[in-house]
Amino acid sequence: MLRGLTQAGIGMNGDERFIAAAAEHGFQAVDLDALSLVERLGLEPARELLRKHGIVIGTIGLPVEWRTTEEAFLQGLEKLAKSAAAAAALGCTSCCTYILPSTDMKPAHFMALATKRLRMCAQILGAYGIRLGLEFVGPHHLRTHWKYPFIWTMEETLDWIDAIGENNVGLLLDAYHWYTNELTTADIERLRPEQIVHVHINDAPDVPVEEAKDNGRIYPGEGVIDLAGFLRALHKIGYKGAVAQEILTAEPPSESPDALLQRSRTGFNQVFSAAGL
Amino acid sequence: MLRGLTQAGIGMNGDERFIAAAAEHGFQAVDLDALSLVERLGLEPARELLRKHGIVIGTIGLPVEWRTTEEAFLQGLEKLAKSAAAAAALGCTSCCTYILPSTDMKPAHFMALATKRLRMCAQILGAYGIRLGLEFVGPHHLRTHWKYPFIWTMEETLDWIDAIGENNVGLLLDAYHWYTNELTTADIERLRPEQIVHVHINDAPDVPVEEAKDNGRIYPGEGVIDLAGFLRALHKIGYKGAVAQEILTAEPPSESPDALLQRSRTGFNQVFSAAGL
Amino acid sequence: MLRGLTQAGIGMNGDERFIAAAAEHGFQAVDLDALSLVERLGLEPARELLRKHGIVIGTIGLPVEWRTTEEAFLQGLEKLAKSAAAAAALGCTSCCTYILPSTDMKPAHFMALATKRLRMCAQILGAYGIRLGLEFVGPHHLRTHWKYPFIWTMEETLDWIDAIGENNVGLLLDAYHWYTNELTTADIERLRPEQIVHVHINDAPDVPVEEAKDNGRIYPGEGVIDLAGFLRALHKIGYKGAVAQEILTAEPPSESPDALLQRSRTGFNQVFSAAGL
Amino acid sequence: MLRGLTQAGIGMNGDERFIAAAAEHGFQAVDLDALSLVERLGLEPARELLRKHGIVIGTIGLPVEWRTTEEAFLQGLEKLAKSAAAAAALGCTSCCTYILPSTDMKPAHFMALATKRLRMCAQILGAYGIRLGLEFVGPHHLRTHWKYPFIWTMEETLDWIDAIGENNVGLLLDAYHWYTNELTTADIERLRPEQIVHVHINDAPDVPVEEAKDNGRIYPGEGVIDLAGFLRALHKIGYKGAVAQEILTAEPPSESPDALLQRSRTGFNQVFSAAGL
Repeated sequence: MLRGLTQAGIGMNGDERFIAAAAEHGFQAVDLDALSLVERLGLEPARELLRKHGIVIGTIGLPVEWRTTEEAFLQGLEKLAKSAAAAAALGCTSCCTYILPSTDMKPAHFMALATKRLRMCAQILGAYGIRLGLEFVGPHHLRTHWKYPFIWTMEETLDWIDAIGENNVGLLLDAYHWYTNELTTADIERLRPEQIVHVHINDAPDVPVEEAKDNGRIYPGEGVIDLAGFLRALHKIGYKGAVAQEILTAEPPSESPDALLQRSRTGFNQVFSAAGL
Repeated sequence: MLRGLTQAGIGMNGDERFIAAAAEHGFQAVDLDALSLVERLGLEPARELLRKHGIVIGTIGLPVEWRTTEEAFLQGLEKLAKSAAAAAALGCTSCCTYILPSTDMKPAHFMALATKRLRMCAQILGAYGIRLGLEFVGPHHLRTHWKYPFIWTMEETLDWIDAIGENNVGLLLDAYHWYTNELTTADIERLRPEQIVHVHINDAPDVPVEEAKDNGRIYPGEGVIDLAGFLRALHKIGYKGAVAQEILTAEPPSESPDALLQRSRTGFNQVFSAAGL
Repeated sequence: MLRGLTQAGIGMNGDERFIAAAAEHGFQAVDLDALSLVERLGLEPARELLRKHGIVIGTIGLPVEWRTTEEAFLQGLEKLAKSAAAAAALGCTSCCTYILPSTDMKPAHFMALATKRLRMCAQILGAYGIRLGLEFVGPHHLRTHWKYPFIWTMEETLDWIDAIGENNVGLLLDAYHWYTNELTTADIERLRPEQIVHVHINDAPDVPVEEAKDNGRIYPGEGVIDLAGFLRALHKIGYKGAVAQEILTAEPPSESPDALLQRSRTGFNQVFSAAGL
Repeated sequence: MLRGLTQAGIGMNGDERFIAAAAEHGFQAVDLDALSLVERLGLEPARELLRKHGIVIGTIGLPVEWRTTEEAFLQGLEKLAKSAAAAAALGCTSCCTYILPSTDMKPAHFMALATKRLRMCAQILGAYGIRLGLEFVGPHHLRTHWKYPFIWTMEETLDWIDAIGENNVGLLLDAYHWYTNELTTADIERLRPEQIVHVHINDAPDVPVEEAKDNGRIYPGEGVIDLAGFLRALHKIGYKGAVAQEILTAEPPSESPDALLQRSRTGFNQVFSAAGL
C-alpha cells in the first residue's frame, strides 16, 4: 500500500510545494487535480516533478457536478475527458467522488438521475483507463441533515455500483465512514481488492460513535478507530493502492504545514507498524 | 389503436372464454399470461384460438418479483425467458409492471436494486423482441401509504427508464395515473410514440383528484377524466398499440360478465367517438 | 421531411454563405460542424443566423476517429462532449459517421474495438440529447478494396446497432447505399421511424449496379435510383427528419455553386413531387 | 490454485464416479454440468456428494449455442437462468465457452451478433453471481480451417471482453492456447487475477508450434510447454481458482480411467512442484 496525503489537514497551498513536502515526509502518493497541474506546468515537466520526488497521484476528484441540475452536470461533462486524459498521462488510474447520506430531493428520483450520470462519468473515465471510486459517508448527523435518507452503508454502495453497471466502478473506503457505520475487519475481508478504488485514513475522537462529526476528524493514531485492523484487513485481501489521509475539521489547522506533515508521518508510522506493515 | 381488455372489471375466468367474449364485444386485444395459455393448449392451438377470434395479446404481466428479496427475484428470473418466448411465439411484443409510489425500504437503495433487476428483465425480454413497460401510479393515498416516497410522476419514470439504460423500456401510460398526476394532453404530445409500450384506460369518479382511490376506478366514459383528449393526444403522436381497460375496484363487480363487457363496449364507443377515432 | 444539403456537390466554402444559399434555394436543413460555427460566431449569433434563414442543422459529423488507433480515438474523444454541447445548443439532435465495407484489420477484432468506441461516443452524445447515425456503404468496389470484408448491408448494421446497445443509435440511410445493396421500398417499410437518424439522397448513373462507384454519384432525379419510391417509403413509415443531398464525385464540380444549387433544387422538386410529397 | 479435472482425457462416464475418482487421485475441482447433477440427484444430495469428496465445481460449460442461428440462441437462453441457479446453488461461480479462431460467416457481422449474445448470457449469469470465461483458441490449423479469420489472441479476446462490457466476463486461459499463441509468462503477469475466470492445463508434443493440433494434446509434464512458468506466473499475480486438465485427442484414450487419473496426478505433481507450488 502507498502512504498518501490529501491537502485536507495539511494547510498547504500549491501542488509543487505539496508534492515536494509529501515526499520529504516519507509519503508516496498525493491526491490532486492532474489537469490543472498539466495545464500549469506542461505534461513533461509535470511528469518530471512527480518522478523526481517519487510521488504518484493517488486519485483525482471527479470534476463533474452530478448532484444538482442537468445543466450543471452537462457543463462539467464537457471537461471530463480532458481531466481523465491528463490524469492518465500522469499515470493516475483513479477518480473519486463522495455520496451525501441524505438529500432534499425525492431520493429514488435522485438515485435514478445519479445512476445515469455516474454511469456516463465512469464510461468516459474508463476510456482512459481510469476507475471511479464512490465514497459512502457514515457520520450519523449527516444521515438526517437533509430531508430524506439517501444511502450511507457499504452494502448499499456496492448495490449501487452494480446498478451503475460499469466494470470500472468501485469503493472509496474511508476509515472514518467504516467506523461510523460500525463495520468490522470481516466486512473488509469480504471484499475483493479490485472492488476498492481508493482508501482514506483518518481517526475519530473518543465520543460515542453516533456523535462523531464528519468534520471532527483527527490524525491517524490519535483516536479510537482500529486503524491497525483496518490496514491489516486491506493488506490481507491484497489491496495495493494508496491510503490517503484526509483530515476534515471545523476550523483550519493552527499548526504550520511542516508540523502537520510531521504529525501525519508519526501517525502513519504508528498505525502501519501496529498493523505489522 | 387497438381496443383492449384486461380481466379486471370483467369478472370472467378462463382465457379461452375471455378471448371469445372480448372478440364478440368488438375488442381487438386482451392482456393475459401467454405462457400459461401455451402450456395449457399448446403453441399452435393457442395461435389458432387468437387468430380465429381476431384477437392479439396486448401485453403480458412481468412474471418476476422485483420488489422484494434477491431470492424471490432470482427465482422469478429463471422463468422469464420462457415467458418471453411464449409471448413472442404468440405475436405479443410487450410486458408490463407497475411501480408503487411509496416504499418501506430506503428508497434510494431500493431504486438501485430495482434498476439492476429491471435492466436484467429488459435485457432478457429484449432478446425475444419484447419491450418492458413501466406504469407510474398516481393516486395520492398511495404516495404516503408506505414510509417513504418512491416515484409516481411521468418525468420521474422517464428518468428511471434512462437510468435502466436499455432501449426496449418505455411507459405503460394509464389514464387514471395521468389524471391523478394532473397531467395534460400536452404532456402526452411531448412523448414520442415509441416511448409508450402499453396504455390503460379507466375513468375516475367525480371526487377531488387527491381523493381518487387506486381501487375506485370506473368504466370509461362514466367519470370525469378527459378520455377523449387522452386518446386524441395518443393518436396525434402516432401511438398505434393497445388501449386496455383495467377497472380496479374495492369490491368485485356485481353485474354479469356479459353485462360488464357490454358496459365496457359502450364506454369505449363513447370515448373513442368523442375523440374522433 | 426536411430538404437538406451537405456541401458535397455544391462547391461552396464558408458556413454562413452556405446557410444563406441553402435557404435561398428552398432548402430547410444543412449538415455542418456546429462547434466550429459556435466558436467562430458565438452561440447567440450562430442561433440567430440559422433562425434568420429558417435553416436547421440536419446533422454534424462524428468528430472522433474510431477507425484507427486507440490514441487517435482518445484524442478525438476529448472534444466530443464539447461538439455535442454545441450541436445541442443549436437545436441539432443528430451526429453521423459512415462504415467502410472492407478493412485491412482482422475484421472481428476491429468490430470489437469499434463497438466499444462507438458505444462510448453514443453515450456522450446521448447525454446531450443527440443520436448517432451509422451509415452503411454499399458500392461493390469498396467491399473488396481492403483485405477483408467488414459490413455493408442494412441488416448487418441493425445487428451492430443492437450490439452497441445504446438506445440513441440508428441508421443513416443513404439512397445510394440502399440502391447498391439492391434494397427495396419494402425494406424501408420494415423500419420504425426512430431507427433512422438521418437520410442522404443521391442518384446513380445508368451502369450495372455493381459498377456504381462511391464517388460516381449524380444529382437526384438525374439517374436511375427509384428516389420517388425511396421518399414515399420514408414518408409512409413516418420519418420526419432531414433528407440531405451528398454528391460525392471523383472530380470537383465544374459548375458554379449557384448553378449547382439550382440543379439540386430542381432535382429535389422532381423527386419529391414524383413521390407525391 | 485448485487442481482440477475435466472429463476430457479421463475416459470416464458418470458425474458421481468422476467426482469420487477425482478426489481419490488428489484433485480438488471438476468441471461438469451442475444442472444435470442437481436434476438427477436433487440439490441437497448433490451438495452432499461434493462436500463428502471435498470437490468443488471448477466451471460449467455455457449451455447456450451462441455461434449459429438466432433461433438456436434463444432456445438455449430459455434454460440459462436455470443452469446458472443450479451452479450457484452448488457453489460454482464460473461458466465458460470457447471461441473458434475462424468462421464461415462474415466475421465482423458474426462478431456483432456474438457480442450481443454473450452480453446477454453474461448478464443472466451475473444475476446469479457467476462469471463468464471466454477461451481463445490458438492452434494454427484452426485459424484457416474456416473461410475467414475470427480472433485467437489474448489481446483480441481482452478487447472483445471490453466490447461486451459486462463486469463479470474474463478469460479462460488454456496453457495450450497460450503456447500456440507463443505468449510468455510476462503476458500472464500483465493480467490482474480477476481477469482470469478459469484455467486449463495441457501439454503439447515436441513438434513445431505451428503444427500443434488442437486435438493433439498430451498430459501435463509430458510435453514441451513451460507449464512450470505458466503456473508460477498465475500464482504470482494472485490467481486462486481452478486449473483444470483438458486433454483433447483425436482418438479416445486407450488406457483405463484409473491409469489416466494416475497419469494426470503424476503430471500435476511434476509441474506444480517444478513451479514451486
